[in-house]
Amino acid sequence: MDPFIGSTPRETVERVSASLGCSPTSVKVASYLDQRDTLRHLRENFLVPKIAELPLSDPSLVDGSKECIYLVGNSLGLQPKMARKYLEEELDKWAKTGVHGHTEGSRPWAWAENNIEELMANVVGAKTEEVALMNGLTVNLHLLMLSFYKPTAARHKILLENKAFPSDHYAVESQIRLRGFDPEQSMLLLSPRPGEETLRTEDILDVIEKEGDSIAVVMFSGVQYYTGQLFDMAAITEAGQRKGCYVGFDCAHAAGNAELKLHDWGVDFACWCSYKYLNSGAGGIAGAFIHQKHKDTIKPALLGWWGHDLKTRFQMNNVLDLQSGVSGFRLSNQPILLVCPLQASLEVFNMTSMQALRRKSLLLTGYLEYLIQHYYTEDPAQPHKPHIRIITPSDPQQRGCQLSLSFSIPIRKVFQELEKRGVCCDMREPSVLRIAPVPLYNTFSDVHRFVETLGSALGTSSQ
Amino acid sequence: MDPFIGSTPRETVERVSASLGCSPTSVKVASYLDQRDTLRHLRENFLVPKIAELPLSDPSLVDGSKECIYLVGNSLGLQPKMARKYLEEELDKWAKTGVHGHTEGSRPWAWAENNIEELMANVVGAKTEEVALMNGLTVNLHLLMLSFYKPTAARHKILLENKAFPSDHYAVESQIRLRGFDPEQSMLLLSPRPGEETLRTEDILDVIEKEGDSIAVVMFSGVQYYTGQLFDMAAITEAGQRKGCYVGFDCAHAAGNAELKLHDWGVDFACWCSYKYLNSGAGGIAGAFIHQKHKDTIKPALLGWWGHDLKTRFQMNNVLDLQSGVSGFRLSNQPILLVCPLQASLEVFNMTSMQALRRKSLLLTGYLEYLIQHYYTEDPAQPHKPHIRIITPSDPQQRGCQLSLSFSIPIRKVFQELEKRGVCCDMREPSVLRIAPVPLYNTFSDVHRFVETLGSALGTSSQ
Ligand SMILES: Cc1ncc(COP(=O)(O)O)c(C=O)c1O
Ligand SMILES: Cc1ncc(COP(=O)(O)O)c(C=O)c1O
Repeated sequence: MDPFIGSTPRETVERVSASLGCSPTSVKVASYLDQRDTLRHLRENFLVPKIAELPLSDPSLVDGSKECIYLVGNSLGLQPKMARKYLEEELDKWAKTGVHGHTEGSRPWAWAENNIEELMANVVGAKTEEVALMNGLTVNLHLLMLSFYKPTAARHKILLENKAFPSDHYAVESQIRLRGFDPEQSMLLLSPRPGEETLRTEDILDVIEKEGDSIAVVMFSGVQYYTGQLFDMAAITEAGQRKGCYVGFDCAHAAGNAELKLHDWGVDFACWCSYKYLNSGAGGIAGAFIHQKHKDTIKPALLGWWGHDLKTRFQMNNVLDLQSGVSGFRLSNQPILLVCPLQASLEVFNMTSMQALRRKSLLLTGYLEYLIQHYYTEDPAQPHKPHIRIITPSDPQQRGCQLSLSFSIPIRKVFQELEKRGVCCDMREPSVLRIAPVPLYNTFSDVHRFVETLGSALGTSSQ
Repeated sequence: MDPFIGSTPRETVERVSASLGCSPTSVKVASYLDQRDTLRHLRENFLVPKIAELPLSDPSLVDGSKECIYLVGNSLGLQPKMARKYLEEELDKWAKTGVHGHTEGSRPWAWAENNIEELMANVVGAKTEEVALMNGLTVNLHLLMLSFYKPTAARHKILLENKAFPSDHYAVESQIRLRGFDPEQSMLLLSPRPGEETLRTEDILDVIEKEGDSIAVVMFSGVQYYTGQLFDMAAITEAGQRKGCYVGFDCAHAAGNAELKLHDWGVDFACWCSYKYLNSGAGGIAGAFIHQKHKDTIKPALLGWWGHDLKTRFQMNNVLDLQSGVSGFRLSNQPILLVCPLQASLEVFNMTSMQALRRKSLLLTGYLEYLIQHYYTEDPAQPHKPHIRIITPSDPQQRGCQLSLSFSIPIRKVFQELEKRGVCCDMREPSVLRIAPVPLYNTFSDVHRFVETLGSALGTSSQ
């Protein structure tokens, strides 16, 4: 991407089209950008579904032998090609050696997750010993909050987004209740200003400044699942900690998407799932982070044998030798079958860097934004033409790869037409599509095909 | 097995050997019993490692092409043959349809675990709606105890075995601390009488009777991992509940081993892992049980979106519609890759019944006991001959399939010689071997080969 550094996506697209002598909406621009994409080869590490294989596609409308337009890595990432090989290796080991697999082979099951925690740490900007792979996301959120949320009469609130992901909302609510506080009083829900859809950083910092003395924990998502807003985690962390709060992030939509620096930002704790941008398959093993500054002071509230030092864990003498930091929060032994696909994916991430992926991502999502604006900006001269408002902030620093498109018309029928034509994306009724061009495997051509297909879908569905 | 009903294993072995005109220790007895074993075909559903493939076997000592003597299903069960097929189906679905796998195919990922909960419930004697497959075992133990352990000044104790499995010990300890109580005061640890190795049921019932008013939760294992003792869960449940305690069991070593009737016994709660007798692979998805009598009264302390009613779960409006009973305790979406091998195993269980498996198990383990006693009972006339004491209760009603053998000599060298000869079993230094002939896939010949091999191993290691 190097030629494009320093210019906005709009400038890049217009410059490229000028040099090619074509319209900025021409497919030639997409092809050109793909050719110049130094990360393009990474796509070869993933299995991209063919349109004909998709359950709702209609091969009478499009060429079914083509790869589908997969723009839903924000929900479920594509399968890394090596996932099957690694799984088969472990199935073979189990078949051939039974219980010996716990300590033998390249992925001894008894500490298999430890082997990939360094790869994981690189992706979220953490030190290896700050990361544990374990459980599901909501489970980890609870385990962390049990230690970080220590409400007192004076400081008992948790600050979060008004429209946090449901599981986070319920988790926070139940944590407050568990400590004998009342969510009505202790759950501080921050909403966008009237008429706005995303939070302003200044408003977040403001409420922390004003209410911080009564806030025990500031708990935001890294990237908002619905709006795609990327929060300023560094600023929120700094503001919260200045007021004596702990600051944690649910990075479900940020890990593998945004460039995270959990360690450098001094974030207190974080957790994430791995089946979205981290491509580990449905229900994959989740991650947890605790900053090393807390390693000797923040202790797990709930204990299990997997928190015991590995060297003496199997002596089984019922005297706990607790590992420091997040490692002490481990409870149960972890599934080897979930480690395999995540390893396969993290190895692809580690062929490049989040910095390089982010650089591509800015242009890729900027290109999507450019085309959407070009075709679907509201036009007072054409009041009946469907138009699209992009909910996601236009400031690239405030978003990851996803754009949330709000349509002026009900979306269900359009969505069905998109599916028939081989587009995989996410619909939230009544009128929102979430579109995530993932820099790890999506192409500029994917984006171009999507916008083109959207045109046909809108055309057909309005008939 | 029908010809043998009504007689003890000893009587059966002696009757068979008499009718065959051979010694009771002859391999002919094992072959005869295998021929009459109506469950023998179930073994064909599992992959039994070959001796030559085992990392520590020595094919100069035994025929490496033979199947190994796998007696460690109490630690890690064998791989069901269908596990790979089911996993491949899901990998294919992921490769071919991406995110559509959540709702398509024979195992839609978004509720994949629900599809096998009926099979699971059959194995532990529960109603389907009393069972949830989720998380790891220690995680589930904590989630259950957060709701069932509600200590008050008068009733704050948890009664458990003195040598519970370490994770259970730590879990209980940390639960007590979390509520502001002191494990020194609140953790009531029950030890065997001096000179004894297992607990007497009468002593368990006695302490419940005497201390029950101060006990909030009675928390035993179903089968003790070290001694192999099967507790009288029905009697303990009844005694505990009579005194107003909740009674829960960790069935890690009981599920798929003993005949459980969690529902009929009125057990309040239970949990188990699936990688031992349930053959789901290292770190497989765990189970949790809450009796239906609590379905509207016992609520989860920690909440997540997977506890929300499936019908409206994905509307994402942050108003929780909590499922009743154990289903409301679900937090995170569950991994499809762990559902596959467990399904494969549970289908084999459901080709028969725990009752039939238990019938075989009584004879299989009784046969092992018979041979061990025959060869290794302490003989005052031969003071230097190694002998074996069986720690596991001799009463078949008080054990599952496992026998814990305590040797009069240090065991490490013997264990190594066993491993060279293709025996897979579990060693606990200084002197215990745990031997688990699993009725689902082990044969009488396995048991005979083990005892024969033990003879060579002892012979070699004493040289
Ligand atoms: C009785 C018992 N409890 C707890 C555990 C820990 O299980 P997990 O690591 O799955 O939480 C085990 C594992 O062997 C066990 O046997
Ligand atoms: C922001 C966020 N939090 C929580 C969850 C729930 O994750 P899990 O079911 O893995 O606990 C999700 C899942 O999509 C999510 O996006």
